[in-house]
Amino acid sequence: MKTLEINIENNLAVVALNRGRSNPINLEMVLELISAVKELEANDEVEGLIISGKEGFFSAGIDLIEVYHYNEQQSKDFWTNFLLMQTTLVSFKKPYVAAITGHSPAGGCIIALCADYRVMAKGSFIIGLNEIPVGIIVPEAVFHLYSFWLGKRKAYQYLLEGKLLNVDEALQEGLVDEIVEPIDVLTVAKKKLKVYMKMNPETWRQSKLNLRKELISQMQTDQSETLNKMLEKWWSSETRLSLQKVIDQLTKSVKN
Amino acid sequence: MKTLEINIENNLAVVALNRGRSNPINLEMVLELISAVKELEANDEVEGLIISGKEGFFSAGIDLIEVYHYNEQQSKDFWTNFLLMQTTLVSFKKPYVAAITGHSPAGGCIIALCADYRVMAKGSFIIGLNEIPVGIIVPEAVFHLYSFWLGKRKAYQYLLEGKLLNVDEALQEGLVDEIVEPIDVLTVAKKKLKVYMKMNPETWRQSKLNLRKELISQMQTDQSETLNKMLEKWWSSETRLSLQKVIDQLTKSVKN
Amino acid sequence: MKTLEINIENNLAVVALNRGRSNPINLEMVLELISAVKELEANDEVEGLIISGKEGFFSAGIDLIEVYHYNEQQSKDFWTNFLLMQTTLVSFKKPYVAAITGHSPAGGCIIALCADYRVMAKGSFIIGLNEIPVGIIVPEAVFHLYSFWLGKRKAYQYLLEGKLLNVDEALQEGLVDEIVEPIDVLTVAKKKLKVYMKMNPETWRQSKLNLRKELISQMQTDQSETLNKMLEKWWSSETRLSLQKVIDQLTKSVKN
Repeated sequence: MKTLEINIENNLAVVALNRGRSNPINLEMVLELISAVKELEANDEVEGLIISGKEGFFSAGIDLIEVYHYNEQQSKDFWTNFLLMQTTLVSFKKPYVAAITGHSPAGGCIIALCADYRVMAKGSFIIGLNEIPVGIIVPEAVFHLYSFWLGKRKAYQYLLEGKLLNVDEALQEGLVDEIVEPIDVLTVAKKKLKVYMKMNPETWRQSKLNLRKELISQMQTDQSETLNKMLEKWWSSETRLSLQKVIDQLTKSVKN
Repeated sequence: MKTLEINIENNLAVVALNRGRSNPINLEMVLELISAVKELEANDEVEGLIISGKEGFFSAGIDLIEVYHYNEQQSKDFWTNFLLMQTTLVSFKKPYVAAITGHSPAGGCIIALCADYRVMAKGSFIIGLNEIPVGIIVPEAVFHLYSFWLGKRKAYQYLLEGKLLNVDEALQEGLVDEIVEPIDVLTVAKKKLKVYMKMNPETWRQSKLNLRKELISQMQTDQSETLNKMLEKWWSSETRLSLQKVIDQLTKSVKN
Repeated sequence: MKTLEINIENNLAVVALNRGRSNPINLEMVLELISAVKELEANDEVEGLIISGKEGFFSAGIDLIEVYHYNEQQSKDFWTNFLLMQTTLVSFKKPYVAAITGHSPAGGCIIALCADYRVMAKGSFIIGLNEIPVGIIVPEAVFHLYSFWLGKRKAYQYLLEGKLLNVDEALQEGLVDEIVEPIDVLTVAKKKLKVYMKMNPETWRQSKLNLRKELISQMQTDQSETLNKMLEKWWSSETRLSLQKVIDQLTKSVKN
């Protein structure tokens, strides 16, 4: 795959996001991730999944520069599949641990939130959902996913100010479960995954689906309404303008 | 308005509860608050709301002395509109910060719980939901509202013993978000409100409604059943008796 | 009753689990507990309930040795009634405090989770839901019950690794509300119960049912589907095998 590197060893699959320096999420990555996760779900050799990033970045979130320039059909495809990716990851029945190797805002954070457990690298990294400041409406499903881990109060207030947490805050608030040296992130994630993989797979997986039953149903229900609102807002002049500003800043910071 | 003082400045509306020494809530205040909030919602000049109280009191809660003496129709009006006030405040789509200037038990706490963020004055003040000791049945909707901020365990156990929290406990448990010197409450509340007001209004408001979708629906659904049970209980001899006792104590403490 | 000792004094009922050294739960205990709780609910003399255990054990959980040897009909009866016991305890409208006198894993923990408040004995005791390592699928209702007290994140992650908490962890995480010397467990539980019993009973009980409305409905809805899956899994060769291993260990440890 072009945007992912997949390794399967001892029944354990590691999917490393691998696109550019910061793993920004474009349509190609979304499609590849959906397809990879579905294959790993169906593959009886695979008993557990890790999604990791690269040094310094789990994922910088949606590739705003590319996505901004999509035409109407591409935009629709992108957002439709982004929501599908969320649902696919939330519904993945085998154990999934996120190895958060660095920054993980917005879309990067969403991918990590779908995991059963999150290990994050120590360092001056940020993680959290900052859709509102970027001009993206937060769907109800994302609130349910965020509050599953943070509780409703923190999820609500952090979303409404678009708060990005540093690594210590993320640990403190339960947004991540463990922080370790960057070099140890993958090892510790594997260790945790193996704890889950030691259990009877059928019992573990059916239990996971039972525990996520409400969450999975919340992710599935408001898809089409959410999608329409997202697209309408996405093409509004004010979102275009605010995206343009964000992109200008991104471009400038890349050039410097 | 007779029970409220409303000031709008720089797109920011401050509604100060203003009835007697302790802002006890009667039918007039409930009706004025509903009407004010609806107007501020519709007023395009207004981009954010603060509800505050006066020195020492945000609100002492329902004016039991007055409400006790309502006839059947007045009681029905009062409780119907009290529930409507809750729903109106919970559904308010613009940012709303509570400036809790002092004591805030029962009905006062309800008004504060509808806000997006709560700033409370330091001092020997109390806040919390003590309906059960007063003889008022807690509706399911109030539990959902309380547990949105406190989590279910604390909301459940505090309600069942009618616990009133002091300012430090309220901060610790997340019932309020910040405590500051009484003189700074309004300033700090405004500062927080402006953080929300800086975001794109359409994105922010639609996101707020998404995040509160379940809560708003919970506030709306059980209104009529709840109302009937409240009224039945309200007119029961044992509630009359327990209210009479509370009122005797209140009257005595006012006289001393 | 054969497996319970019931004492009623000053309107307060104490039900002591009383079967063998560790109060393992068999069909007889389940049936007696359902029957006792229903009678105490209907008995107007009784205004509050404590369930306690014996020194060192609240309950060791399901009596795997006996339950393993049930025939098909007995197994069906056992699991049907175990779920009914849960629902009966969760729906009990009078105040119920658990006096956790010692170890309280799995089924023992379930009985305690249905209470309004939990007092646990200091000591090297464990409590928690370890169904998955034993090979039992966790029903959705049990997750809702566990997360009512722990929040979703902790309930989810603890269940998926079958974590048993020591007494300090249990207090820290809110799984129990108070820890005291073993000799004081019953006294402290009674003291808390009397706080609830001092309130107007009708107001308190109707409020409790309102606060638990969602939880009660969650316990009731998935009963039959859950039951079928449980039974299917229960009779699968891998569960028989894993139970056999657990039982061998239990038998060995009893002999030593």
